[in-house]
Amino acid sequence: MSIYLDSAASTALDPQVKEAMISSMDAVFGNPSSTHAHGRASKAELEKARKMIAQNINALPSEIIFTSGGTETDNAAIKGLVHAYGLKRIITSKLEHHAVLHITEHLAQENNIELIYLDCDNKGVLDLDQLEQLLSEKGEETLVTLMHCNNEIGNILDIKRVGDLCKEAGAYFHSDTVQSVGHFPVDVKEIHVHTLAGAAHKFHGPKGAGFMYIKKGTKMPALIEGGGQEREVRSGTENVWGIVGLAKALEIATEEMDAHTAHIKEVKQHMIDLLKEHIDGVEFNGMSANLDNSLYTVLNVSFPPSPKNNMLLFALDLQGVSVSGGSACSSGASVGSHVIAGIGGASDRTSVRFSFSKYNEKAEIDTVVGKLKEILGLVEA
Amino acid sequence: MSIYLDSAASTALDPQVKEAMISSMDAVFGNPSSTHAHGRASKAELEKARKMIAQNINALPSEIIFTSGGTETDNAAIKGLVHAYGLKRIITSKLEHHAVLHITEHLAQENNIELIYLDCDNKGVLDLDQLEQLLSEKGEETLVTLMHCNNEIGNILDIKRVGDLCKEAGAYFHSDTVQSVGHFPVDVKEIHVHTLAGAAHKFHGPKGAGFMYIKKGTKMPALIEGGGQEREVRSGTENVWGIVGLAKALEIATEEMDAHTAHIKEVKQHMIDLLKEHIDGVEFNGMSANLDNSLYTVLNVSFPPSPKNNMLLFALDLQGVSVSGGSACSSGASVGSHVIAGIGGASDRTSVRFSFSKYNEKAEIDTVVGKLKEILGLVEA
Ligand SMILES: Cc1ncc(COP(=O)(O)O)c(C=O)c1O
Ligand SMILES: Cc1ncc(COP(=O)(O)O)c(C=O)c1O
Repeated sequence: MSIYLDSAASTALDPQVKEAMISSMDAVFGNPSSTHAHGRASKAELEKARKMIAQNINALPSEIIFTSGGTETDNAAIKGLVHAYGLKRIITSKLEHHAVLHITEHLAQENNIELIYLDCDNKGVLDLDQLEQLLSEKGEETLVTLMHCNNEIGNILDIKRVGDLCKEAGAYFHSDTVQSVGHFPVDVKEIHVHTLAGAAHKFHGPKGAGFMYIKKGTKMPALIEGGGQEREVRSGTENVWGIVGLAKALEIATEEMDAHTAHIKEVKQHMIDLLKEHIDGVEFNGMSANLDNSLYTVLNVSFPPSPKNNMLLFALDLQGVSVSGGSACSSGASVGSHVIAGIGGASDRTSVRFSFSKYNEKAEIDTVVGKLKEILGLVEA
Repeated sequence: MSIYLDSAASTALDPQVKEAMISSMDAVFGNPSSTHAHGRASKAELEKARKMIAQNINALPSEIIFTSGGTETDNAAIKGLVHAYGLKRIITSKLEHHAVLHITEHLAQENNIELIYLDCDNKGVLDLDQLEQLLSEKGEETLVTLMHCNNEIGNILDIKRVGDLCKEAGAYFHSDTVQSVGHFPVDVKEIHVHTLAGAAHKFHGPKGAGFMYIKKGTKMPALIEGGGQEREVRSGTENVWGIVGLAKALEIATEEMDAHTAHIKEVKQHMIDLLKEHIDGVEFNGMSANLDNSLYTVLNVSFPPSPKNNMLLFALDLQGVSVSGGSACSSGASVGSHVIAGIGGASDRTSVRFSFSKYNEKAEIDTVVGKLKEILGLVEA
């Protein structure tokens, strides 16, 4: 038996995406920068993909740059904006992904930049009034980098409001939308944002293929320089087949978004109901149990203190259930979650992130909750 | 008709590599950083690939880091070494790839680093005595970055001698081996080098998958930071299927190296012979016509002045023949080759790079030389 409830870490490849990638493997191999027929055929694949992605977020094709994924995009966007505009202040939060936390820390250290973490409450909700207050000063020297959907506790930022605040103050705004692209409609005409990040493997596409949205007119120095591909913003021969997969995955995700949202919400609600019914003292971290105001793919469960807790992940894994104890992006052993720590999670409780995709069914949830009861000693195994 | 003679820009996918990638797509999708079964299965694919690549260049698996390709690797290695060791001087050459030229230029500008280009003769052969002389001073503050095989004129660096000179002087040495990996045996125990670059798409693997070799004990700060993947040197979820393709491609390239070398040299010699026979005044740039001392995949042909020259590439393309006027890594229109300029190529002649792979046959060369004669007006079309 194998049940996968870790889609926020990475998703299963959609068979249609696989087919699209294989078709492209069969059709083209030229270097997209070559001007001959073989090159132009590859270039056409790239530009088709770029157009498709642009359409999905209501951007211009020229505002889309291909990268190797979410981490590269976050690094390049944040570093790029800070350097291009000589920014002196970064406002972010302790609940960001490491792809944002580490680069902002280092940038601040090395360039004598003021680094401010917004306050949040014990549900992880950021204090946007504080942001407004902060932006009333030195707005034009400020980069705001705040994620749209939190990968661990599922909180959704009021990205529209943050964008408006930034616009008003003349601040620069990057949003790590790695968890929202493909799951929520993203419309760059509706939100004022300079850069966004997307990664195909979060919506049933391949790992190693992502994109950056760069608002027209925004200066963006290259993190990786060389042959001048991707409008000089990102050099290196493009991952053509991965990009074809990225575009196909986003196309499917957009087409099927309503149906999948409804399906996944049902699965998630079912899990919330079963956990409340069967596990005394269970709680939910962040906003993740709020179905109308959270990333519907994520449920972060806080188990009450129990001697069995420290073997929870391991025991689930042994039973064929894949879930996460924190962000999956740290290699090696679980070191606890900086996000749960950041919202002041009680240290005697254990947090497990369950995350869902269109491929999960309610029956799997029944099985998993049954296993949980056994592991926690609530029923005989 | 379609004849592809631009394998130095990018190669056709080997069907066995395609099969390996599809098998991996069917087998795994977990995030390799996840500790559960799905994650471990992906991790196992990565580590198998890492081991295979390490074996092929006689390195330790822990000395191999996956990246998105040659450009990223060159950028990361050069920037990383300069920053990690506080280097004050870079010695390189004007004949390097843009992935090296641009990053060294910018690093030098921004960090007040002395940038020295080695002299070369009109065959593009670098003055290694000058290098020795330069290294006799300030060796320990110096990064030497010189490519193994030149992608345009096929010159091969005496990488062993350069490594020895660097070692003696205590200098740091990066070599862009993007064109040699998979085509020549590379043995890191034989050459003293700190970092090397490889890109799968140069030896019949996928675009967007590459690696960095980092000699054990060498400090290497991250160009892309985040979740700490790849021993903290390169964060971001790894391109698992691309990496599987990279390893498979290198395995095949290594196994078949002798046979392919012999085959491709025959094709190249045939082209040299036919061109000399049929086109008066033809010359060859760099060392590329020296079969025993050049990158055997590359032949850079200098056509004598002719009114037809400026339509040569275009006319070949129209006839279904894909070749290159320079490095393919610059997007858009041909702007002439900085390498040909760097060796003082006569401006009234036209240079065309023909580059070969195991999939080319002598008969294709017959056809291409026939077309060339027609285009140049040497025979009736
Ligand atoms: C919110 C968020 N940002 C960034 C990333 C990094 O993306 P990638 O692994 O594609 O580099 C992830 C996932 O790993 C994520 O969940
Ligand atoms: C010598 C050399 N270095 C670096 C590169 C860049 O590699 P990539 O296109 O994989 O980024 C290339 C080819 O494009 C090359 O020929």
